[in-house]
Amino acid sequence: MDDHPQKTSIDTRPTPVKLDIGLPAIVPAGQPQLDLQLARWLALDGYPRHALGRAEELVKQLARIQCVEGQAFGGISLERPQLVVFAADHGIVDEGVSAFGQEVSRQRVDEVLRGSAVVNTLARLHGFELTVVDAGLAQRLDAPTGADERVTLLARKIGHGTRNMVLSPAMPLRQAIAALQAGMDVVRHLPGRVVALGDIGVGSTACASLLLSRLCGVPLADACGRDPGPGDGQDSLRHQRRLEKLQLAAARHRKAVTPLEALAAMGGFEIAMQAGAMLQAASERRIVLVDGFVSGAAALVARGLRPAVADYLVFGHRSTEPGHRLLLIHMQAQPLLDMALRVGQGAGALMAWPLLLAAQAMLTGRMAQD
Amino acid sequence: MDDHPQKTSIDTRPTPVKLDIGLPAIVPAGQPQLDLQLARWLALDGYPRHALGRAEELVKQLARIQCVEGQAFGGISLERPQLVVFAADHGIVDEGVSAFGQEVSRQRVDEVLRGSAVVNTLARLHGFELTVVDAGLAQRLDAPTGADERVTLLARKIGHGTRNMVLSPAMPLRQAIAALQAGMDVVRHLPGRVVALGDIGVGSTACASLLLSRLCGVPLADACGRDPGPGDGQDSLRHQRRLEKLQLAAARHRKAVTPLEALAAMGGFEIAMQAGAMLQAASERRIVLVDGFVSGAAALVARGLRPAVADYLVFGHRSTEPGHRLLLIHMQAQPLLDMALRVGQGAGALMAWPLLLAAQAMLTGRMAQD
Repeated sequence: MDDHPQKTSIDTRPTPVKLDIGLPAIVPAGQPQLDLQLARWLALDGYPRHALGRAEELVKQLARIQCVEGQAFGGISLERPQLVVFAADHGIVDEGVSAFGQEVSRQRVDEVLRGSAVVNTLARLHGFELTVVDAGLAQRLDAPTGADERVTLLARKIGHGTRNMVLSPAMPLRQAIAALQAGMDVVRHLPGRVVALGDIGVGSTACASLLLSRLCGVPLADACGRDPGPGDGQDSLRHQRRLEKLQLAAARHRKAVTPLEALAAMGGFEIAMQAGAMLQAASERRIVLVDGFVSGAAALVARGLRPAVADYLVFGHRSTEPGHRLLLIHMQAQPLLDMALRVGQGAGALMAWPLLLAAQAMLTGRMAQD
Repeated sequence: MDDHPQKTSIDTRPTPVKLDIGLPAIVPAGQPQLDLQLARWLALDGYPRHALGRAEELVKQLARIQCVEGQAFGGISLERPQLVVFAADHGIVDEGVSAFGQEVSRQRVDEVLRGSAVVNTLARLHGFELTVVDAGLAQRLDAPTGADERVTLLARKIGHGTRNMVLSPAMPLRQAIAALQAGMDVVRHLPGRVVALGDIGVGSTACASLLLSRLCGVPLADACGRDPGPGDGQDSLRHQRRLEKLQLAAARHRKAVTPLEALAAMGGFEIAMQAGAMLQAASERRIVLVDGFVSGAAALVARGLRPAVADYLVFGHRSTEPGHRLLLIHMQAQPLLDMALRVGQGAGALMAWPLLLAAQAMLTGRMAQD
């Protein structure tokens, strides 16, 4: 695939080549021996089977991540948890697929940089350090006046928004690779063992729907939820129009079937960077707390590139997007929360964080009694 | 209704009298003026409608509880949250309705008193002070050797377990009233503005099913979930037998239709005390964090006695009990978590606690920007 596939004629798709994009190796987190031990720990004497319910799965996952073959299991510190919010714009917004214009992405980012967004409140409450990455906003981004000094701003702009994917690939393959690598790089320099990931970017759910549809074989109409707007009564009309535009984009990029090709053709800079961040974090055995539908689409791409990444992903929140529900089923994941949040920014991941702390406390508590 | 309704002949049921059980007055928490202000606070500029999803409802509820008519709204401290675990036994366990014997209640209580139960882990994690109340365990209860000094034990035993409600009312009316008052009394002496409530008691879900069925007109078969046992393959048989026993109990107490009558005939000491605790807490404008199905049944009784109590109840967790789902629908409540916990003890309430903290932080954060 090159920059302009709309110019190509039938079946000029290049034979798949192994691109050296420098993805890190990821060790699967499971160990049969550990699972036996966990089953013993988790069988609470005098209680029904599976008394810890869904917390059991989380406890097991945390144990698997923290237990390195051949090493004693001491339990790691979950101090200095990090939230990284990747922000980018999407050319497809030109087609009217969103209730908001691209300028709104920048407004939302400014709000986070000033410390007044919902996610700042949650980060302060739960002691998360917050980094905002300009992955590719359409506008120039500087720290606003009155910026919150607790928020770190990283300039990793790949482009001024993606291109309109109804007309051309969202980004050339080299930009997709650059974005993956930038995401890896961001995580490489973060402290702590927990990375929560979120995103800001008007139009990003359109990308998530397209990636879900392509990578999981879900019909686009099912993957494409309604984008609730300002309540002006135009929602149904906008939904229909949006679906038609996404169908055009999907048809144009019908040959982009590998995770990397799909990412370049129909993804976004913030999705690519989140995928890279997940891969890097998993390669370092960090715990990754995934936010909503868009983070989920990044997880899908990351899993396509390195299947073992899934062992390190904790899904924080299920949004009301119908596509997100399908995506989680395809990831065989049950998110911790179901709060119907629509703010993005990693807010769902941060709201779920205390459940992870609880599971960790249960794990170390049971271990201490063993 | 007297102590031995099985001796009464047809229609000797006394005409309902207004018993003076000393229930506190509860002021409804809503205020139309405040709701207008909240709608403004919660409409996030540049985001879809209801972007905070279900967190919105929680923010609103917290605001309503904290906003007293005619007073400036400053936001209250949520420090020193309290967990009270009420423990009691149930005579109906003699009928084989539970996979566990009554002695298991005492074992579970001992575990909490020693600080090694799941709920101790959660209480330590989230900074809850923990009180265990012997509301009516069958056995004598003393602090065990190696008791955790951070756990307070209160002896408020109403009886050595309830009677077998298949044969007679679970408790005489005067015991139900004494238990309600004991629950009120326990809360009256607690510090802080938040009370989480949980319970321990083999056989308590049978009571919850019967109370739900009677007070909400739900068919008993729907209100009566499977009680998952130790996985010995006898679950279906036990479920059938259990339902038959509960049907016998429901038929015997068919005339116990008011909340208080139903509580005495088919409730439990820990349910009555939780209902009393809820009423007292609400009368003092405290926030009540409700745990699972059994706490939910107490909420049903409390609402029957004082409808305004519902304004102060935050439902923490939905268990896998099918009856719990129905109960929550009847309470018009959506619980914060859906973790399929089966440990009781208030564990679900405590796991949900950080969501309440998050909502409070959002509320005060939005207010500060106003």
